[in-house]
Amino acid sequence: MASPDPDYSTQGYSDIIVTLEGSILTILINNAKKRNTLTKTLWTDLVRVFELSDKDDRVRVVILTAEPTAPAYCSGVDISGGWGSLWKAEEEKEGEHAHRDMGGQLSMAVYNNRKVTIAAVNGHAVGVGMTAMQLPFDIRFAWEGAKLAFPFVRRGIVPEATSSYLLPRLLGTSRANALILTGATVSPTSPLIRDLYYEILPSREAVYPAAKALAQDLAANTSQLAIAYAKGLVQHSGDSIEENHLHDSRAMRLLAGSPDGAEGALAFRERRLPKFSATLTKDVSPWFPWWRRVDVRFRESKL
Amino acid sequence: MASPDPDYSTQGYSDIIVTLEGSILTILINNAKKRNTLTKTLWTDLVRVFELSDKDDRVRVVILTAEPTAPAYCSGVDISGGWGSLWKAEEEKEGEHAHRDMGGQLSMAVYNNRKVTIAAVNGHAVGVGMTAMQLPFDIRFAWEGAKLAFPFVRRGIVPEATSSYLLPRLLGTSRANALILTGATVSPTSPLIRDLYYEILPSREAVYPAAKALAQDLAANTSQLAIAYAKGLVQHSGDSIEENHLHDSRAMRLLAGSPDGAEGALAFRERRLPKFSATLTKDVSPWFPWWRRVDVRFRESKL
Amino acid sequence: MASPDPDYSTQGYSDIIVTLEGSILTILINNAKKRNTLTKTLWTDLVRVFELSDKDDRVRVVILTAEPTAPAYCSGVDISGGWGSLWKAEEEKEGEHAHRDMGGQLSMAVYNNRKVTIAAVNGHAVGVGMTAMQLPFDIRFAWEGAKLAFPFVRRGIVPEATSSYLLPRLLGTSRANALILTGATVSPTSPLIRDLYYEILPSREAVYPAAKALAQDLAANTSQLAIAYAKGLVQHSGDSIEENHLHDSRAMRLLAGSPDGAEGALAFRERRLPKFSATLTKDVSPWFPWWRRVDVRFRESKL
Repeated sequence: MASPDPDYSTQGYSDIIVTLEGSILTILINNAKKRNTLTKTLWTDLVRVFELSDKDDRVRVVILTAEPTAPAYCSGVDISGGWGSLWKAEEEKEGEHAHRDMGGQLSMAVYNNRKVTIAAVNGHAVGVGMTAMQLPFDIRFAWEGAKLAFPFVRRGIVPEATSSYLLPRLLGTSRANALILTGATVSPTSPLIRDLYYEILPSREAVYPAAKALAQDLAANTSQLAIAYAKGLVQHSGDSIEENHLHDSRAMRLLAGSPDGAEGALAFRERRLPKFSATLTKDVSPWFPWWRRVDVRFRESKL
Repeated sequence: MASPDPDYSTQGYSDIIVTLEGSILTILINNAKKRNTLTKTLWTDLVRVFELSDKDDRVRVVILTAEPTAPAYCSGVDISGGWGSLWKAEEEKEGEHAHRDMGGQLSMAVYNNRKVTIAAVNGHAVGVGMTAMQLPFDIRFAWEGAKLAFPFVRRGIVPEATSSYLLPRLLGTSRANALILTGATVSPTSPLIRDLYYEILPSREAVYPAAKALAQDLAANTSQLAIAYAKGLVQHSGDSIEENHLHDSRAMRLLAGSPDGAEGALAFRERRLPKFSATLTKDVSPWFPWWRRVDVRFRESKL
Repeated sequence: MASPDPDYSTQGYSDIIVTLEGSILTILINNAKKRNTLTKTLWTDLVRVFELSDKDDRVRVVILTAEPTAPAYCSGVDISGGWGSLWKAEEEKEGEHAHRDMGGQLSMAVYNNRKVTIAAVNGHAVGVGMTAMQLPFDIRFAWEGAKLAFPFVRRGIVPEATSSYLLPRLLGTSRANALILTGATVSPTSPLIRDLYYEILPSREAVYPAAKALAQDLAANTSQLAIAYAKGLVQHSGDSIEENHLHDSRAMRLLAGSPDGAEGALAFRERRLPKFSATLTKDVSPWFPWWRRVDVRFRESKL
């Protein structure tokens, strides 16, 4: 693995190790002493790196993974201080509507990242390790021995981190309900969850290399612009086929008329791999995003 | 099985037998002489018991099942009087917009029940036996020999009981269309439908015990409040990830700050099973439900 | 196969051969010399025949297929002239918002056709051959050896033809993202895509006969009216279970009170196959469609 990238490592992360190799950013969860629980520090680090990498044209793919020797990929949120440690004193006074779930803020940072995002789940995953650290990603790889747990209703709380939005859309409500409402712990090969994974690997050590191989292919051979628009089209596909047609027509016109579109057509005719050069910073249309993002802040951002 | 509960049995049900055992309410369809068709009596009984059990704090899980020796789990709506028997004379005068499908009213009573609902499909299921008596439930078990039929388009009518809403969300539109538009009869193990089932059992006799075992686990180890909020979050997840984040943040704040949330965290730290005590009657927030339920009555409720 | 139908063949199609046999309309892509790419001629032919067959009461099922000896079922859009050939000079002046994707216009013509539509994919399918020529159909059959490719992001363009609307709804977003964002080429038996297919056949020659057999069953035994309403209910199911209940109640009242509903109930009682006679031209309610179709034209229709 390449050495940690200065820009990312100098952000002062303490619970992750961030490495930029080529255009692949790898985020390694580095909190094994706490079983890779989502501490406030880890959470802050992750949100920041997903927000930064969204704006960094050098990054085409972001992979989140853990040490294959850690006790878990992520064993849930750190509740050593009780659930009450999840909110601040001033929120306590404001009341229930003031709370903003930290898992959800991480989910949104991943979901709204315009690059390809990959979760390389090479260990057990519990609670937020199953939700924010997997569901908002574009692609997921898993170790077949991983225990995947949705314990929420068994702990007196609700499924969080926007999982009640993401899981029904990812798998349909039949399997989403079966996982969420039973508080199940399942294997990646269970019929209830296997379609969540692009590939299921036999060993913990095999997970990251498989994710990396796909990342290298996508980093080399896909257009950054095309990926960003494609993600936007799926996430904001419109309320009818006609509305979607208006969106994808405009996106197609923009992309087909862009240098990346021209290169794609030329490479196809010349039977060679393409070399895409467009970047989000300089080549995205003012029309993008075409949807309005709901402001979720309470008074001021918690970040 | 425990003896029928007085509160439920004295409602004068004739086509079902209702038993409350611990906090598990079992509804046994008891209409084998009519092949367990959905008669008006059976329909009225079922709607009433799903509405009652929603409000009964003693009930944590509701199971619908049939005698394993009956000719079917449910062999469809009773049309011995022709389709016209489905509506009343006054509706006939009012016109088409006055009709309210009885299958749909049953589906809504099940879907809007805030407890865990389980369909234990231990026999053949046709028409409404495949729709209202399965699709609105949270979890479904099936006998692998069951014939599952969606005969609507082969009988000159439309898929009813809100199945055109539920099935595409449960399984995706590829398989929903394949089932609905071909008027198919399939086995639970068919790739078109297998993901509808939490577990598929080899014998009719094995279906209810499997459902009961899950029900006992959930009744003992999940929070009634957490289940109700989790169901609400999945059913009304919001139109965007951000909107969902606002919902689940508030629900999380309410639950994590509740006695059930405290007990869940404590039991986790003490490595023991939790004992949840919150009930919907006394512990639900005025904020719940956070969505507006569409009023479907025509003039006055038909129930 | 029956001889080409005069009404359809005299429309002057050049890239398709259209045959009406009984009430099954077969559209054979006839452009093997260009590897069955979607030329403007083929596109115009297809849109026209899907619009015509929607209005032709004789047609109950529409099958799209190719010669099993052709190089592909459809090998994508014809970009021999570069992407720029996809729009006209006047659109070039108008700007990006004037473009209307031809794949999307074909998808909408198929999706909005009120008959049963079947794609018999008996060869490789690339780009628009995977999107407009498969996803908007009700039912899909495939040859197990077909290469199915979503190359968009590898060619610098976006997934088109409303595929970002259709694919997530057909299969869920987990598999839709895995196909769209990786620019994957997969086999029909891949776990990522197998649920898209009603049946996967071992040889190219077996695909059309399998589709035809289902078509014959449906043409003989389903109500044209019931199919049209059922498709409407799935495609426009409403934003809540209650809204859907209002739709399917009204549709049920209309159908159950129609000659097809009466015949369906009678045939069931007499234990015989039904003979449905209702047609969309004379028997559909003014209430249908109950949804408003979004107007996607830019100034004037491009067709």
